[in-house]
Amino acid sequence: MESHKPEDPVVELLTTYNELNSSRIEELDEEPSPLEFMRYVARNTPFVVRRSAQDWTATRTWNAAYLCSTLAGHKVNVAVTPFGNADAPTPDGQGHTIFAKPHEEDQDFGQFLQYLSKRPKEGVKYDMRKRVEKSIAFARIALERDPDAINMWIGNSRSVTALHRDNYENIYVQAAGRKHFVLLPPLFQPCVNEQDLEPATYVRARSVGQARGEEEEGLVLRMDETVDDEASKVPFATWDPDTPEVRATPYSHLAEPMRVSLEPGDMLYLPAMW
Amino acid sequence: MESHKPEDPVVELLTTYNELNSSRIEELDEEPSPLEFMRYVARNTPFVVRRSAQDWTATRTWNAAYLCSTLAGHKVNVAVTPFGNADAPTPDGQGHTIFAKPHEEDQDFGQFLQYLSKRPKEGVKYDMRKRVEKSIAFARIALERDPDAINMWIGNSRSVTALHRDNYENIYVQAAGRKHFVLLPPLFQPCVNEQDLEPATYVRARSVGQARGEEEEGLVLRMDETVDDEASKVPFATWDPDTPEVRATPYSHLAEPMRVSLEPGDMLYLPAMW
Repeated sequence: MESHKPEDPVVELLTTYNELNSSRIEELDEEPSPLEFMRYVARNTPFVVRRSAQDWTATRTWNAAYLCSTLAGHKVNVAVTPFGNADAPTPDGQGHTIFAKPHEEDQDFGQFLQYLSKRPKEGVKYDMRKRVEKSIAFARIALERDPDAINMWIGNSRSVTALHRDNYENIYVQAAGRKHFVLLPPLFQPCVNEQDLEPATYVRARSVGQARGEEEEGLVLRMDETVDDEASKVPFATWDPDTPEVRATPYSHLAEPMRVSLEPGDMLYLPAMW
Repeated sequence: MESHKPEDPVVELLTTYNELNSSRIEELDEEPSPLEFMRYVARNTPFVVRRSAQDWTATRTWNAAYLCSTLAGHKVNVAVTPFGNADAPTPDGQGHTIFAKPHEEDQDFGQFLQYLSKRPKEGVKYDMRKRVEKSIAFARIALERDPDAINMWIGNSRSVTALHRDNYENIYVQAAGRKHFVLLPPLFQPCVNEQDLEPATYVRARSVGQARGEEEEGLVLRMDETVDDEASKVPFATWDPDTPEVRATPYSHLAEPMRVSLEPGDMLYLPAMW
Protein backbone atom coordinates (compact mmCIF):
# COMPACT_ATOMS: atom_id res chain seq x y z
CA MET A 1 0.00 0.00 0.00
CA GLU A 2 1.21 3.45 -0.88
CA SER A 3 1.10 6.00 1.85
CA HIS A 4 0.09 9.47 0.75
CA LYS A 5 1.56 12.50 2.44
CA PRO A 6 -1.43 14.62 3.33
CA GLU A 7 -1.24 17.82 1.34
CA ASP A 8 -1.97 21.25 2.73
CA PRO A 9 -5.77 21.41 2.29
CA VAL A 10 -5.58 25.05 1.14
CA VAL A 11 -3.17 24.06 -1.65
CA GLU A 12 -5.52 21.24 -2.58
CA LEU A 13 -8.55 23.54 -2.60
CA LEU A 14 -6.94 26.21 -4.78
CA THR A 15 -5.39 23.68 -7.14
CA THR A 16 -8.71 21.90 -7.56
CA TYR A 17 -10.45 25.21 -8.19
CA ASN A 18 -7.97 25.99 -10.95
CA GLU A 19 -8.48 22.58 -12.51
CA LEU A 20 -12.26 22.94 -12.55
CA ASN A 21 -12.54 26.61 -13.53
CA SER A 22 -11.14 28.54 -16.45
CA SER A 23 -9.39 31.84 -15.82
CA ARG A 24 -10.91 33.06 -19.11
CA ILE A 25 -13.95 35.20 -18.54
CA GLU A 26 -17.21 34.11 -20.16
CA GLU A 27 -18.18 36.35 -23.07
CA LEU A 28 -21.83 36.86 -23.99
CA ASP A 29 -23.09 38.21 -27.30
CA GLU A 30 -26.05 39.98 -25.77
CA GLU A 31 -27.44 40.97 -22.40
CA PRO A 32 -28.60 37.98 -20.35
CA SER A 33 -32.21 37.57 -19.31
CA PRO A 34 -32.90 38.11 -15.60
CA LEU A 35 -32.93 34.33 -15.14
CA GLU A 36 -29.68 33.85 -17.06
CA PHE A 37 -28.13 36.63 -15.01
CA MET A 38 -29.32 35.00 -11.80
CA ARG A 39 -27.50 31.81 -12.81
CA TYR A 40 -24.26 33.81 -12.89
CA VAL A 41 -25.08 35.40 -9.53
CA ALA A 42 -25.75 31.95 -8.09
CA ARG A 43 -22.39 30.72 -9.39
CA ASN A 44 -20.68 33.98 -8.32
CA THR A 45 -19.11 34.10 -11.79
CA PRO A 46 -18.21 37.20 -13.83
CA PHE A 47 -19.09 37.65 -17.49
CA VAL A 48 -18.63 40.35 -20.07
CA VAL A 49 -21.12 41.41 -22.72
CA ARG A 50 -19.20 42.87 -25.61
CA ARG A 51 -20.59 46.09 -27.11
CA SER A 52 -23.78 45.63 -25.09
CA ALA A 53 -23.91 49.34 -24.22
CA GLN A 54 -22.67 50.66 -27.56
CA ASP A 55 -25.96 52.43 -28.15
CA TRP A 56 -26.12 54.03 -24.74
CA THR A 57 -26.14 57.80 -24.85
CA ALA A 58 -23.09 57.73 -22.61
CA THR A 59 -21.10 55.53 -24.98
CA ARG A 60 -22.14 57.51 -28.03
CA THR A 61 -21.74 61.05 -26.73
CA TRP A 62 -19.51 61.28 -23.69
CA ASN A 63 -16.09 62.75 -24.14
CA ALA A 64 -14.16 65.43 -22.30
CA ALA A 65 -15.70 68.32 -24.24
CA TYR A 66 -19.25 67.05 -23.91
CA LEU A 67 -18.98 66.30 -20.20
CA CYS A 68 -17.29 69.63 -19.62
CA SER A 69 -20.12 71.58 -21.21
CA THR A 70 -22.86 69.43 -19.66
CA LEU A 71 -21.48 69.31 -16.15
CA ALA A 72 -19.93 72.77 -16.09
CA GLY A 73 -20.51 74.31 -12.69
CA HIS A 74 -21.31 70.97 -11.03
CA LYS A 75 -19.20 70.08 -8.04
CA VAL A 76 -17.70 66.62 -8.08
CA ASN A 77 -15.93 64.73 -5.33
CA VAL A 78 -12.35 64.17 -6.45
CA ALA A 79 -9.95 61.67 -4.91
CA VAL A 80 -6.52 63.28 -5.16
CA THR A 81 -3.31 61.29 -4.69
CA PRO A 82 0.23 61.90 -5.90
CA PHE A 83 0.62 58.50 -7.57
CA GLY A 84 -2.96 57.62 -8.51
CA ASN A 85 -2.98 55.21 -5.59
CA ALA A 86 -6.31 55.88 -3.85
CA ASP A 87 -7.19 53.45 -1.03
CA ALA A 88 -3.98 51.53 -1.53
CA PRO A 89 -1.35 49.83 0.59
CA THR A 90 1.61 52.19 0.42
CA PRO A 91 5.16 52.09 1.84
CA ASP A 92 5.54 54.73 4.53
CA GLY A 93 9.26 55.16 3.81
CA GLN A 94 10.16 53.56 7.13
CA GLY A 95 9.78 49.94 6.16
CA HIS A 96 6.08 49.66 6.94
CA THR A 97 3.06 49.40 4.70
CA ILE A 98 0.21 51.73 5.55
CA PHE A 99 -3.24 52.24 4.07
CA ALA A 100 -3.19 55.46 2.06
CA LYS A 101 -6.52 57.20 1.64
CA PRO A 102 -6.87 59.95 -0.95
CA HIS A 103 -7.28 63.60 -0.29
CA GLU A 104 -10.93 64.19 -1.12
CA GLU A 105 -12.12 67.56 -2.29
CA ASP A 106 -15.03 69.00 -4.18
CA GLN A 107 -13.98 70.52 -7.46
CA ASP A 108 -15.84 72.18 -10.25
CA PHE A 109 -16.17 69.54 -12.98
CA GLY A 110 -14.50 71.69 -15.62
CA GLN A 111 -11.62 72.44 -13.29
CA PHE A 112 -11.28 68.72 -12.55
CA LEU A 113 -11.14 67.75 -16.24
CA GLN A 114 -8.51 70.38 -16.97
CA TYR A 115 -6.54 69.17 -13.97
CA LEU A 116 -6.81 65.55 -15.12
CA SER A 117 -5.47 66.30 -18.60
CA LYS A 118 -2.49 68.19 -17.20
CA ARG A 119 -1.58 66.15 -14.15
CA PRO A 120 -2.56 62.65 -15.02
CA LYS A 121 -3.00 61.17 -11.56
CA GLU A 122 -6.53 61.67 -10.32
CA GLY A 123 -9.88 59.96 -10.22
CA VAL A 124 -13.43 61.02 -9.63
CA LYS A 125 -16.54 59.49 -8.26
CA TYR A 126 -19.76 61.17 -9.25
CA ASP A 127 -23.33 60.16 -8.59
CA MET A 128 -24.77 59.68 -12.07
CA ARG A 129 -28.28 58.74 -11.01
CA LYS A 130 -29.81 61.58 -13.06
CA ARG A 131 -27.51 61.28 -16.07
CA VAL A 132 -27.69 57.66 -17.20
CA GLU A 133 -30.03 54.68 -17.35
CA LYS A 134 -31.68 54.48 -13.93
CA SER A 135 -31.09 50.76 -13.74
CA ILE A 136 -30.09 47.78 -15.84
CA ALA A 137 -33.24 45.78 -16.43
CA PHE A 138 -31.85 42.24 -16.17
CA ALA A 139 -30.15 43.03 -12.87
CA ARG A 140 -33.04 45.04 -11.41
CA ILE A 141 -35.52 42.25 -12.15
CA ALA A 142 -33.21 39.45 -11.01
CA LEU A 143 -32.08 41.11 -7.78
CA GLU A 144 -35.45 42.79 -7.15
CA ARG A 145 -33.97 46.18 -6.43
CA ASP A 146 -32.71 49.33 -8.00
CA PRO A 147 -28.98 50.04 -7.80
CA ASP A 148 -27.72 51.21 -4.43
CA ALA A 149 -25.41 53.57 -6.28
CA ILE A 150 -24.68 54.67 -9.84
CA ASN A 151 -21.20 56.08 -10.03
CA MET A 152 -19.08 57.46 -12.82
CA TRP A 153 -15.36 56.88 -12.58
CA ILE A 154 -12.97 58.98 -14.60
CA GLY A 155 -9.29 58.24 -14.75
CA ASN A 156 -6.51 58.33 -17.25
CA SER A 157 -3.84 55.96 -18.49
CA ARG A 158 -1.99 56.16 -15.18
CA SER A 159 -4.97 55.54 -12.89
CA VAL A 160 -4.59 52.29 -10.93
CA THR A 161 -6.93 50.78 -8.35
CA ALA A 162 -5.41 48.54 -5.70
CA LEU A 163 -6.59 44.93 -5.38
CA HIS A 164 -9.73 45.13 -3.26
CA ARG A 165 -13.19 43.68 -2.95
CA ASP A 166 -16.66 45.13 -2.48
CA ASN A 167 -19.72 43.64 -0.89
CA TYR A 168 -21.85 44.62 -3.91
CA GLU A 169 -22.92 43.02 -7.14
CA ASN A 170 -21.52 45.40 -9.73
CA ILE A 171 -22.38 46.09 -13.37
CA TYR A 172 -19.55 48.07 -14.89
CA VAL A 173 -20.02 49.77 -18.26
CA GLN A 174 -17.12 51.26 -20.17
CA ALA A 175 -18.34 54.52 -21.70
CA ALA A 176 -15.05 55.76 -23.16
CA GLY A 177 -11.44 54.70 -23.18
CA ARG A 178 -10.23 51.34 -21.99
CA LYS A 179 -9.87 49.62 -18.63
CA HIS A 180 -7.96 46.50 -17.70
CA PHE A 181 -9.38 44.37 -14.91
CA VAL A 182 -7.46 41.75 -12.95
CA LEU A 183 -9.99 39.61 -11.08
CA LEU A 184 -9.57 37.00 -8.37
CA PRO A 185 -12.33 34.77 -6.98
CA PRO A 186 -13.09 35.13 -3.24
CA LEU A 187 -11.60 31.69 -2.69
CA PHE A 188 -8.12 33.07 -3.37
CA GLN A 189 -8.15 35.11 -0.19
CA PRO A 190 -5.13 33.13 1.16
CA CYS A 191 -3.08 34.48 -1.78
CA VAL A 192 -3.58 38.20 -1.25
CA ASN A 193 -1.73 38.66 2.03
CA GLU A 194 -4.41 40.63 3.81
CA GLN A 195 -2.94 42.69 6.63
CA ASP A 196 -4.29 45.14 9.17
CA LEU A 197 -2.85 48.45 7.98
CA GLU A 198 -2.67 51.73 9.84
CA PRO A 199 -4.74 54.31 7.97
CA ALA A 200 -3.25 57.53 6.65
CA THR A 201 -4.74 60.26 4.48
CA TYR A 202 -3.18 62.54 1.88
CA VAL A 203 -3.53 66.18 2.81
CA ARG A 204 -2.52 69.39 1.09
CA ALA A 205 0.93 70.22 2.46
CA ARG A 206 -0.07 73.69 3.54
CA SER A 207 -2.53 72.30 6.09
CA VAL A 208 -0.24 69.65 7.50
CA GLY A 209 1.16 69.50 10.99
CA GLN A 210 3.11 66.28 11.23
CA ALA A 211 4.00 65.10 7.75
CA ARG A 212 5.60 61.79 6.87
CA GLY A 213 7.68 63.20 4.00
CA GLU A 214 6.82 65.57 1.16
CA GLU A 215 5.41 64.22 -2.06
CA GLU A 216 4.94 65.90 -5.40
CA GLU A 217 1.76 67.88 -6.04
CA GLY A 218 1.99 69.32 -2.55
CA LEU A 219 0.35 66.23 -1.03
CA VAL A 220 1.70 64.55 2.05
CA LEU A 221 0.51 61.46 3.81
CA ARG A 222 -0.59 62.01 7.41
CA MET A 223 -1.36 59.16 9.79
CA ASP A 224 -5.01 59.26 10.87
CA GLU A 225 -5.59 60.21 14.48
CA THR A 226 -7.42 57.28 15.97
CA VAL A 227 -8.93 56.54 19.35
CA ASP A 228 -8.24 52.82 19.25
CA ASP A 229 -5.27 51.88 17.10
CA GLU A 230 -6.23 48.21 16.81
CA ALA A 231 -9.89 48.81 15.99
CA SER A 232 -9.14 51.48 13.39
CA LYS A 233 -6.71 49.41 11.37
CA VAL A 234 -7.87 48.57 7.87
CA PRO A 235 -7.75 44.91 6.78
CA PHE A 236 -6.49 45.08 3.20
CA ALA A 237 -4.84 42.93 0.54
CA THR A 238 -1.15 43.83 0.24
CA TRP A 239 -0.26 41.41 -2.57
CA ASP A 240 -0.51 42.65 -6.15
CA PRO A 241 -1.06 40.10 -8.96
CA ASP A 242 0.93 42.40 -11.27
CA THR A 243 4.03 42.26 -9.05
CA PRO A 244 3.56 38.71 -7.81
CA GLU A 245 6.99 38.39 -6.16
CA VAL A 246 6.34 41.26 -3.75
CA ARG A 247 4.64 40.56 -0.40
CA ALA A 248 3.66 37.06 -1.58
CA THR A 249 2.18 34.41 0.71
CA PRO A 250 2.98 30.70 0.37
CA TYR A 251 -0.22 30.47 -1.69
CA SER A 252 0.16 33.50 -3.98
CA HIS A 253 1.77 31.50 -6.78
CA LEU A 254 -1.45 29.45 -7.03
CA ALA A 255 -3.55 32.49 -7.95
CA GLU A 256 -4.61 32.45 -11.59
CA PRO A 257 -6.19 35.86 -12.09
CA MET A 258 -8.90 36.40 -14.67
CA ARG A 259 -7.85 39.29 -16.91
CA VAL A 260 -10.32 41.22 -19.02
CA SER A 261 -9.96 44.47 -20.94
CA LEU A 262 -13.03 46.56 -21.62
CA GLU A 263 -13.54 48.64 -24.73
CA PRO A 264 -16.20 51.34 -25.06
CA GLY A 265 -19.67 49.78 -24.87
CA ASP A 266 -18.52 46.65 -23.06
CA MET A 267 -20.38 45.62 -19.91
CA LEU A 268 -18.85 43.59 -17.08
CA TYR A 269 -20.64 41.71 -14.31
CA LEU A 270 -18.27 41.90 -11.38
CA PRO A 271 -19.71 39.69 -8.63
CA ALA A 272 -19.67 40.68 -4.98
CA MET A 273 -16.48 39.76 -3.12
CA TRP A 274 -14.34 39.22 -6.23
CA MET B 1 -9.33 52.00 25.95
CA GLU B 2 -11.05 48.66 26.26
CA SER B 3 -9.13 45.69 25.06
CA HIS B 4 -11.20 43.03 23.35
CA LYS B 5 -10.27 39.41 23.70
CA PRO B 6 -10.25 38.07 20.18
CA GLU B 7 -13.02 35.50 19.91
CA ASP B 8 -12.71 32.18 18.14
CA PRO B 9 -13.52 33.19 14.53
CA VAL B 10 -15.64 30.06 14.01
CA VAL B 11 -17.79 30.99 17.02
CA GLU B 12 -18.10 34.51 15.65
CA LEU B 13 -19.05 33.23 12.19
CA LEU B 14 -21.74 30.85 13.44
CA THR B 15 -23.12 33.35 15.94
CA THR B 16 -23.33 36.04 13.27
CA TYR B 17 -25.04 33.63 10.90
CA ASN B 18 -27.66 32.88 13.56
CA GLU B 19 -28.23 36.59 14.16
CA LEU B 20 -28.72 37.32 10.47
CA ASN B 21 -30.73 34.25 9.47
CA SER B 22 -33.93 32.79 10.80
CA SER B 23 -34.12 29.10 11.54
CA ARG B 24 -37.75 29.22 10.35
CA ILE B 25 -38.11 27.96 6.82
CA GLU B 26 -39.65 30.29 4.26
CA GLU B 27 -43.14 29.24 3.25
CA LEU B 28 -44.51 30.02 -0.20
CA ASP B 29 -48.18 29.95 -1.18
CA GLU B 30 -47.48 28.77 -4.70
CA GLU B 31 -44.66 27.43 -6.85
CA PRO B 32 -41.97 30.02 -7.55
CA SER B 33 -41.17 31.16 -11.06
CA PRO B 34 -37.84 29.92 -12.46
CA LEU B 35 -36.32 33.31 -11.62
CA GLU B 36 -37.72 33.31 -8.09
CA PHE B 37 -36.44 29.78 -7.64
CA MET B 38 -33.00 30.82 -8.91
CA ARG B 39 -32.88 33.51 -6.19
CA TYR B 40 -33.26 30.75 -3.59
CA VAL B 41 -30.59 28.68 -5.33
CA ALA B 42 -28.26 31.70 -5.34
CA ARG B 43 -28.87 32.20 -1.63
CA ASN B 44 -28.64 28.44 -0.98
CA THR B 45 -31.84 28.75 1.05
CA PRO B 46 -34.59 26.14 1.48
CA PHE B 47 -38.27 26.88 1.14
CA VAL B 48 -41.47 24.91 1.35
CA VAL B 49 -44.54 25.29 -0.87
CA ARG B 50 -47.53 24.11 1.08
CA ARG B 51 -50.01 21.93 -0.78
CA SER B 52 -48.27 22.73 -4.06
CA ALA B 53 -48.50 19.11 -5.23
CA GLN B 54 -51.94 18.38 -3.83
CA ASP B 55 -53.32 17.81 -7.31
CA TRP B 56 -50.54 15.52 -8.43
CA THR B 57 -51.73 12.07 -9.35
CA ALA B 58 -49.29 10.70 -6.80
CA THR B 59 -50.72 12.76 -3.96
CA ARG B 60 -54.30 12.00 -4.94
CA THR B 61 -54.06 8.30 -5.64
CA TRP B 62 -51.01 6.68 -4.07
CA ASN B 63 -51.54 4.46 -1.09
CA ALA B 64 -50.39 0.97 -0.20
CA ALA B 65 -53.20 -0.78 -2.05
CA TYR B 66 -52.84 1.34 -5.19
CA LEU B 67 -49.06 0.97 -5.38
CA CYS B 68 -49.32 -2.72 -4.67
CA SER B 69 -51.66 -3.32 -7.58
CA THR B 70 -49.83 -0.95 -9.94
CA LEU B 71 -46.32 -2.12 -9.19
CA ALA B 72 -47.12 -5.79 -8.55
CA GLY B 73 -44.39 -7.90 -10.06
CA HIS B 74 -41.91 -5.00 -10.29
CA LYS B 75 -38.63 -5.53 -8.58
CA VAL B 76 -37.52 -2.73 -6.28
CA ASN B 77 -34.19 -2.19 -4.61
CA VAL B 78 -34.76 -2.37 -0.87
CA ALA B 79 -32.35 -1.13 1.78
CA VAL B 80 -32.70 -3.49 4.71
CA THR B 81 -31.37 -2.70 8.17
CA PRO B 82 -32.35 -3.94 11.64
CA PHE B 83 -32.91 -0.47 13.11
CA GLY B 84 -33.93 1.60 10.06
CA ASN B 85 -30.44 3.08 10.15
CA ALA B 86 -29.28 2.96 6.52
CA ASP B 87 -25.98 4.75 5.81
CA ALA B 88 -25.61 5.74 9.42
CA PRO B 89 -22.85 6.03 12.01
CA THR B 90 -23.40 3.06 14.26
CA PRO B 91 -21.68 1.79 17.43
CA ASP B 92 -19.84 -1.43 16.69
CA GLY B 93 -20.28 -2.70 20.26
CA GLN B 94 -16.57 -2.31 20.98
CA GLY B 95 -16.50 1.41 21.65
CA HIS B 96 -16.01 2.50 18.04
CA THR B 97 -18.37 4.14 15.61
CA ILE B 98 -18.51 2.60 12.17
CA PHE B 99 -20.39 3.47 9.00
CA ALA B 100 -23.24 0.98 8.59
CA LYS B 101 -24.46 0.44 5.05
CA PRO B 102 -27.76 -1.38 4.47
CA HIS B 103 -28.21 -4.81 3.06
CA GLU B 104 -29.53 -4.14 -0.42
CA GLU B 105 -31.73 -6.62 -2.18
CA ASP B 106 -34.23 -6.67 -4.97
CA GLN B 107 -37.68 -7.55 -3.82
CA ASP B 108 -40.98 -7.85 -5.52
CA PHE B 109 -42.88 -4.63 -4.73
CA GLY B 110 -45.85 -6.43 -3.20
CA GLN B 111 -43.56 -8.52 -1.05
CA PHE B 112 -41.77 -5.35 0.07
CA LEU B 113 -44.98 -3.57 1.07
CA GLN B 114 -46.17 -6.56 3.06
CA TYR B 115 -42.80 -6.77 4.72
CA LEU B 116 -42.87 -3.04 5.53
CA SER B 117 -46.27 -3.25 7.21
CA LYS B 118 -45.20 -6.20 9.35
CA ARG B 119 -41.61 -5.29 10.20
CA PRO B 120 -41.57 -1.55 10.28
CA LYS B 121 -37.89 -0.95 9.66
CA GLU B 122 -37.20 -0.74 5.98
CA GLY B 123 -36.88 1.77 3.17
CA VAL B 124 -36.97 1.63 -0.58
CA LYS B 125 -35.50 3.60 -3.39
CA TYR B 126 -37.24 3.18 -6.70
CA ASP B 127 -36.64 4.98 -9.98
CA MET B 128 -39.94 6.72 -10.64
CA ARG B 129 -39.00 8.31 -13.95
CA LYS B 130 -41.91 6.64 -15.76
CA ARG B 131 -44.48 7.03 -12.99
CA VAL B 132 -44.53 10.71 -12.08
CA GLU B 133 -44.03 14.18 -13.53
CA LYS B 134 -40.85 13.99 -15.64
CA SER B 135 -39.57 17.23 -14.19
CA ILE B 136 -40.61 20.23 -12.15
CA ALA B 137 -40.89 23.13 -14.55
CA PHE B 138 -39.49 25.94 -12.41
CA ALA B 139 -36.41 23.90 -11.52
CA ARG B 140 -35.87 22.50 -15.02
CA ILE B 141 -35.98 25.97 -16.56
CA ALA B 142 -33.88 27.61 -13.85
CA LEU B 143 -31.19 24.95 -13.72
CA GLU B 144 -31.37 24.20 -17.46
CA ARG B 145 -31.54 20.46 -17.01
CA ASP B 146 -33.83 17.58 -16.32
CA PRO B 147 -33.49 15.82 -12.99
CA ASP B 148 -30.49 13.53 -12.65
CA ALA B 149 -32.72 11.16 -10.71
CA ILE B 150 -36.35 10.79 -9.71
CA ASN B 151 -36.63 8.56 -6.70
CA MET B 152 -39.48 7.38 -4.56
CA TRP B 153 -38.75 6.78 -0.90
CA ILE B 154 -41.05 4.67 1.18
CA GLY B 155 -40.64 4.34 4.90
CA ASN B 156 -42.76 4.10 7.98
CA SER B 157 -43.02 5.83 11.34
CA ARG B 158 -39.74 4.31 12.49
CA SER B 159 -37.66 5.17 9.41
CA VAL B 160 -34.84 7.58 10.24
CA THR B 161 -32.17 8.99 7.96
CA ALA B 162 -28.87 9.97 9.52
CA LEU B 163 -27.64 13.58 9.24
CA HIS B 164 -25.96 13.76 5.84
CA ARG B 165 -25.57 16.00 2.84
CA ASP B 166 -25.88 15.53 -0.91
CA ASN B 167 -24.23 17.39 -3.72
CA TYR B 168 -27.59 17.84 -5.48
CA GLU B 169 -30.32 20.43 -5.57
CA ASN B 170 -33.34 18.46 -4.39
CA ILE B 171 -37.07 18.98 -4.78
CA TYR B 172 -38.83 16.72 -2.33
CA VAL B 173 -42.56 16.12 -2.61
CA GLN B 174 -44.55 14.40 0.09
CA ALA B 175 -47.06 12.09 -1.63
CA ALA B 176 -48.49 10.38 1.45
CA GLY B 177 -47.86 10.35 5.16
CA ARG B 178 -45.67 12.83 6.96
CA LYS B 179 -41.94 13.46 7.16
CA HIS B 180 -39.97 15.59 9.60
CA PHE B 181 -36.83 17.27 8.30
CA VAL B 182 -34.04 18.66 10.46
CA LEU B 183 -31.88 20.89 8.26
CA LEU B 184 -28.50 22.51 8.86
CA PRO B 185 -26.79 25.01 6.54
CA PRO B 186 -23.39 23.95 5.11
CA LEU B 187 -21.75 26.59 7.29
CA PHE B 188 -22.46 24.48 10.37
CA GLN B 189 -20.04 21.81 9.30
CA PRO B 190 -17.89 22.45 12.43
CA CYS B 191 -20.88 21.35 14.55
CA VAL B 192 -21.48 17.92 13.06
CA ASN B 193 -18.29 16.15 14.16
CA GLU B 194 -17.44 14.63 10.82
CA GLN B 195 -15.19 11.61 11.23
CA ASP B 196 -13.60 9.08 8.91
CA LEU B 197 -15.54 5.91 9.66
CA GLU B 198 -14.70 2.37 8.68
CA PRO B 199 -17.42 1.01 6.40
CA ALA B 200 -19.47 -2.06 7.24
CA THR B 201 -22.44 -3.62 5.51
CA TYR B 202 -25.42 -5.52 6.88
CA VAL B 203 -25.60 -9.04 5.50
CA ARG B 204 -28.05 -11.87 5.96
CA ALA B 205 -26.65 -13.94 8.80
CA ARG B 206 -26.68 -17.14 6.82
CA SER B 207 -24.12 -15.77 4.38
CA VAL B 208 -21.80 -14.32 7.00
CA GLY B 209 -18.28 -15.46 7.72
CA GLN B 210 -16.93 -13.09 10.34
CA ALA B 211 -19.81 -11.39 12.07
CA ARG B 212 -19.53 -8.59 14.60
CA GLY B 213 -22.47 -9.78 16.69
CA GLU B 214 -25.92 -11.01 15.80
CA GLU B 215 -28.75 -8.54 15.30
CA GLU B 216 -32.46 -9.13 15.04
CA GLU B 217 -33.99 -9.97 11.66
CA GLY B 218 -31.04 -12.19 10.88
CA LEU B 219 -28.92 -9.25 9.83
CA VAL B 220 -25.36 -8.81 11.02
CA LEU B 221 -22.92 -6.07 10.34
CA ARG B 222 -19.74 -7.14 8.57
CA MET B 223 -16.74 -4.87 8.11
CA ASP B 224 -16.09 -4.20 4.43
CA GLU B 225 -12.99 -5.82 3.00
CA THR B 226 -10.90 -2.96 1.71
CA VAL B 227 -7.59 -2.69 -0.09
CA ASP B 228 -6.57 0.61 1.50
CA ASP B 229 -8.07 1.12 4.93
CA GLU B 230 -7.38 4.86 5.01
CA ALA B 231 -8.69 5.57 1.51
CA SER B 232 -11.84 3.54 2.00
CA LYS B 233 -12.96 5.26 5.18
CA VAL B 234 -16.16 7.24 4.87
CA PRO B 235 -16.16 10.87 6.09
CA PHE B 236 -19.49 11.26 7.84
CA ALA B 237 -21.25 13.45 10.39
CA THR B 238 -21.45 11.65 13.73
CA TRP B 239 -23.35 14.33 15.65
CA ASP B 240 -27.15 14.15 15.71
CA PRO B 241 -29.16 17.36 16.29
CA ASP B 242 -31.82 15.24 18.01
CA THR B 243 -29.39 13.94 20.63
CA PRO B 244 -27.22 17.06 20.87
CA GLU B 245 -25.23 15.95 23.93
CA VAL B 246 -23.81 12.89 22.20
CA ARG B 247 -20.57 13.19 20.20
CA ALA B 248 -20.80 16.99 20.31
CA THR B 249 -18.00 19.29 19.16
CA PRO B 250 -17.19 22.60 20.91
CA TYR B 251 -19.38 24.23 18.24
CA SER B 252 -22.39 21.88 18.24
CA HIS B 253 -24.34 23.97 20.76
CA LEU B 254 -24.31 26.84 18.23
CA ALA B 255 -26.24 24.87 15.63
CA GLU B 256 -29.81 26.11 15.24
CA PRO B 257 -31.43 23.52 12.98
CA MET B 258 -34.30 24.42 10.71
CA ARG B 259 -37.15 22.03 11.35
CA VAL B 260 -39.95 21.47 8.89
CA SER B 261 -42.68 18.84 8.72
CA LEU B 262 -44.21 17.96 5.39
CA GLU B 263 -47.82 16.95 4.92
CA PRO B 264 -49.16 15.27 1.76
CA GLY B 265 -48.85 17.65 -1.20
CA ASP B 266 -46.12 19.79 0.38
CA MET B 267 -43.00 20.48 -1.68
CA LEU B 268 -39.56 21.21 -0.16
CA TYR B 269 -36.57 22.76 -1.88
CA LEU B 270 -33.59 21.19 -0.14
CA PRO B 271 -30.48 22.97 -1.44
CA ALA B 272 -27.28 21.12 -2.26
CA MET B 273 -24.95 20.59 0.70
CA TRP B 274 -27.54 21.27 3.40
